[in-house]
Amino acid sequence: MQPTQRRLANAVRALAMDAVETANSGHPGMPMGMADAATALFTRALKFDPADPSWPDRDRFVLSAGHGSMLIYALLHLCGYERPTMEDIRRFRQLGSPCAGHPENFELPGVECTTGPLGQGLAMAVGMAIAERHLNAVYGDELVDHRTFVIAGDGCLMEGVNHEAAGLAGNLKLGRLIVLWDDNQITIDGSTDLSRNEDVMARHAAMGWHTVECDGMDAGKVAAAIDKAKADPRPSLIRVKTIIGYGAPGKQGTAATHGAALGKAEVEAARKELGLAPEEFTVPPDVLGAWRTAGGRGAADRKAWERRLGASGKRDEFLARMEGKVDDRWLKPYLDALVESPPTVATRKASEMALEVINTAVSSTIGGSADLTGSNNTKTKALQPLTAEDYSGRYIYYGIREFGMAAAMNGMALHGGVIPYGGTFLVFADYCRPAIRLSALQRARVIYVMTHDSIGLGEDGPTHQPVEHLQSLRCMPGLHVYRPADAVETAECWALALQDEGPSVLALSRQNLPPVRLEAADENRCARGAYRLRGAAAERKVILLATGSEVEIALAAAERLEAEGIGADVVSMPSTTVFDAQPAEYRESILPDLSNREVLRVSIEAGTTIGWERYTGLHGLRIGLDGFGASAPAPDLYAHFGLTAEAIATRVLRYLEQREMR
Amino acid sequence: MQPTQRRLANAVRALAMDAVETANSGHPGMPMGMADAATALFTRALKFDPADPSWPDRDRFVLSAGHGSMLIYALLHLCGYERPTMEDIRRFRQLGSPCAGHPENFELPGVECTTGPLGQGLAMAVGMAIAERHLNAVYGDELVDHRTFVIAGDGCLMEGVNHEAAGLAGNLKLGRLIVLWDDNQITIDGSTDLSRNEDVMARHAAMGWHTVECDGMDAGKVAAAIDKAKADPRPSLIRVKTIIGYGAPGKQGTAATHGAALGKAEVEAARKELGLAPEEFTVPPDVLGAWRTAGGRGAADRKAWERRLGASGKRDEFLARMEGKVDDRWLKPYLDALVESPPTVATRKASEMALEVINTAVSSTIGGSADLTGSNNTKTKALQPLTAEDYSGRYIYYGIREFGMAAAMNGMALHGGVIPYGGTFLVFADYCRPAIRLSALQRARVIYVMTHDSIGLGEDGPTHQPVEHLQSLRCMPGLHVYRPADAVETAECWALALQDEGPSVLALSRQNLPPVRLEAADENRCARGAYRLRGAAAERKVILLATGSEVEIALAAAERLEAEGIGADVVSMPSTTVFDAQPAEYRESILPDLSNREVLRVSIEAGTTIGWERYTGLHGLRIGLDGFGASAPAPDLYAHFGLTAEAIATRVLRYLEQREMR
Repeated sequence: MQPTQRRLANAVRALAMDAVETANSGHPGMPMGMADAATALFTRALKFDPADPSWPDRDRFVLSAGHGSMLIYALLHLCGYERPTMEDIRRFRQLGSPCAGHPENFELPGVECTTGPLGQGLAMAVGMAIAERHLNAVYGDELVDHRTFVIAGDGCLMEGVNHEAAGLAGNLKLGRLIVLWDDNQITIDGSTDLSRNEDVMARHAAMGWHTVECDGMDAGKVAAAIDKAKADPRPSLIRVKTIIGYGAPGKQGTAATHGAALGKAEVEAARKELGLAPEEFTVPPDVLGAWRTAGGRGAADRKAWERRLGASGKRDEFLARMEGKVDDRWLKPYLDALVESPPTVATRKASEMALEVINTAVSSTIGGSADLTGSNNTKTKALQPLTAEDYSGRYIYYGIREFGMAAAMNGMALHGGVIPYGGTFLVFADYCRPAIRLSALQRARVIYVMTHDSIGLGEDGPTHQPVEHLQSLRCMPGLHVYRPADAVETAECWALALQDEGPSVLALSRQNLPPVRLEAADENRCARGAYRLRGAAAERKVILLATGSEVEIALAAAERLEAEGIGADVVSMPSTTVFDAQPAEYRESILPDLSNREVLRVSIEAGTTIGWERYTGLHGLRIGLDGFGASAPAPDLYAHFGLTAEAIATRVLRYLEQREMR
Repeated sequence: MQPTQRRLANAVRALAMDAVETANSGHPGMPMGMADAATALFTRALKFDPADPSWPDRDRFVLSAGHGSMLIYALLHLCGYERPTMEDIRRFRQLGSPCAGHPENFELPGVECTTGPLGQGLAMAVGMAIAERHLNAVYGDELVDHRTFVIAGDGCLMEGVNHEAAGLAGNLKLGRLIVLWDDNQITIDGSTDLSRNEDVMARHAAMGWHTVECDGMDAGKVAAAIDKAKADPRPSLIRVKTIIGYGAPGKQGTAATHGAALGKAEVEAARKELGLAPEEFTVPPDVLGAWRTAGGRGAADRKAWERRLGASGKRDEFLARMEGKVDDRWLKPYLDALVESPPTVATRKASEMALEVINTAVSSTIGGSADLTGSNNTKTKALQPLTAEDYSGRYIYYGIREFGMAAAMNGMALHGGVIPYGGTFLVFADYCRPAIRLSALQRARVIYVMTHDSIGLGEDGPTHQPVEHLQSLRCMPGLHVYRPADAVETAECWALALQDEGPSVLALSRQNLPPVRLEAADENRCARGAYRLRGAAAERKVILLATGSEVEIALAAAERLEAEGIGADVVSMPSTTVFDAQPAEYRESILPDLSNREVLRVSIEAGTTIGWERYTGLHGLRIGLDGFGASAPAPDLYAHFGLTAEAIATRVLRYLEQREMR
């Protein structure tokens, strides 16, 4: 006799309970509440094969309520994935275990994305569903034909990014997206009534979603609801009514089960309640067998898919795209053409020019903007919109949804086969920041095109002028921040961003900038992070370091200093983080004698000066902006804040005199 | 004969058009489209008196679609506010004009908050409406009885924070909040259909809002809709159907009017279309007269209110609260008690202990948490929930809405009469960041209680462990970042945050910390930003600088160094930004001989090392964490990442030997 679905679900409950109890840390309530629903999903609905977790046409599953991580660890183990092993699960939340506190895609195949920061899993799933439909439009049903499933909690639905993600999914009619809402009426603070009186279903209906509800404690009913969702052309929200911590007789249905171990006595009681074996971390053989059978049911599908792939004329192209390979042969001829006739353009325009070439050479890019297309210069001429009517398009009108865009781009990048880039103003990096952090943590190749990157944007004033943003982004581990100075550097930085593991921010000017790179180079000079753009003519007394739009100013300041007999290098520094990663030898060749006070180092960037001591030393000069900007035409602002060649040269000369370095 | 409402509205259109044209920069479309609706609001519905823009019982008006700033400048001028003058308007978007690109509360009385970053104006208005109902519950109708009106665009409604703000308002049944949605069906990228297929009205209805719609080009109909909104006990969304850029015959109804000057020819055509005088910046005398009459209609109300205030027994208390005065006599006895029996507690717990005293001594505080009450320790025993049924409560269950909480707190602080503080995990400062920036720009006294401030939170892992956050927040102008080391420092930092102009972040530990401040002090030592906690016993060779939970480690490392005959100061540095603002003399007394290599400076903070060169110099040592954390018990993580007294002492000794400083 087959074990019941409830017994299968109880195996999930047992592992969740035991792992949290052993770690004395974690969240048993959600896995125990959603065990029946998850069992329905994994044993009946989800298309996957534990033998090949990276099978491109697998359904994607996102545990948006990432704190319930034991749910997915239990499911992966029971279904027969190589990892996590039972030993991994025993070491839940311990150093070195892939069973981390929250699910991490870089720890375990089968974990599609890193979740925990609430709302973002669902928003990434929207991106996965977009990528799926796009690749389906390009490669057809025979290669791409899968769904994206999400388990989301009340937190995921209350977070603001939910509104943006649901809006995107509704507008793009992502019928392949199915969200199971764990409706347990409990948040950490207590009843959801404390903070919400919303009709969640009606809200989703208002946003173009299909909605359906079911008893979440009955796997059969959940499976039936999933079937309804599959049949509907709209994205679906399934209200899965559950009891948090189900099976723990003294605590179920309360916030007490949410984020702490149940305690020895309660675990004992739950074992009795659920009819479990007395030993920890055990699964009855018949239950494990049934799970493994269910886990194996996708193998035939996968083999059939592989046969189709083998027979497809697009096999090599498809696999190369899924592997994320990017051809950069576009760069050299484009740079040669730029050097041939150097343009004076804003770097946002230079970015568009580079994209015209890139989007032709690299078919996997998908561009977009959070309603600033004409300002971010993200749409190249040949790109057609990606819409509900035509998913083959490669440009997404994300609407005024910066965070939703960023999270969707994470999902697209993690799905694979596409390289997303999207635009907004640099100041609104703040709106995207939680998703940028997940790009970095997950090493997702997402390219943030962030224009209007300083007070140089002018009249829009301090709400729109980034001051702290560049440095704040540079503080984030694993994020590449590029601030190119002209069209050549912009192209080089684009080439780097396309090759980088992990995300990049391109910080681009609104205002026109003259060309500063006038000679052809065989190497991508931006790949060193910083390089000597101009060598001192007179004896070197000063090194001016600048980024982006301030490189022009540094060059002009150097001219003034040289006219006074002061030799001045100019170092262009498009990426501090890339420079930091260079060998000491190279860094010393650019910033020699950092301990030598005979040479004054001066940093110039229209932003906070915090952190520039790393390159100037304490005895150097840091020229920037440590307060908010103002509303005025850009040239007036640069003059007002002392960011002109004249003001800088004067300051440097005065400083040299004071320090008797002149 | 009275001029028609349309002629009044056309005066707004004329000023908006002329100002943008003269600046050759700005957004004419929104003011021209919403001129009739705004005329209805300002001449009929809004309670205000230009003679006293800070009248506490005025209605609050928030232009959430801040790019349409000329709308509010025109309205304030026409209604008879002292500023902006016509000359100010002529200098729209020029350096020094209070008519900045986006409305700034610190530039113009009558501008209640700084808007432009979309969605936040409306979210701040929710906070204003909360503050109003709370103060009404405390002081009664005779002193507090006003409304909050918002003009919001499609951007404000698409942003994620809208979902959080609308959810808060719906749950708290903020019937005094009335939002006019400028439904012009246009965004920057074109038709709203490009990115949205939502039934906005149904969504708001699902969230407990009253909805009503009207023809926005007819002031009478708008006024009628506002009357309906006033009559309903729920928050109201009025769908105001408008034509963007109305009056510009060749461009109205298109995105071309959104964000650029109309151009000379189109302005001329609009003048004819609207029947305006040919000269720029003119208002016909009868129209101006009618506006001034409308602007003056609140004066009697205000005088009546002042009489009521004068007669009220709560006059002095009310005025002191509105002025934001905070008594800090609670601090000294509390510190004395702490020194008497020093507790070993997490600083989040120490914060709760301080709050128990503060919330008794300071009646204007309103606490809350984004669903982490028990973790943030933000609710003190006596605080009752602020709910739709009882607005007199002083604790808000914000739900899983970090950004909405932060924006609401901005609105509460700007409303005046209350001092909001709210909690979340420090890592989720990212979710709040756009609102934290507006706290700083607006100098709003909001106190962010951010707990679990490092890898010290342990098992929840890298998604929940801040690494870059402290330094990223310190980069933000005008934000006070405090990271106290024990219960004494926590109380001192709370006292500072309560007195600060502008916002503060309190970064607090999850884990227990021993007391490090064992002696009574007559001054608030944290007020210097950093101070010498321990002086070297042997000849000083090392200064260890540490913050928060790492001060304990620094002290233990110093002991080890002294045992080796190396004299070591320990400097506790609860606030780098406060320290930076101290006189040079003081800074040198703490970090003497910064140019002297005989003393090694070592920074210790469980976060990014970027920026610490400011205090260590390049020849110092920076001990921290430049990558993401991991999931494990906190002590394991501290050991893994080399953040133990032993590892640090070893590193310092090795470094001294290498540098031949030993």
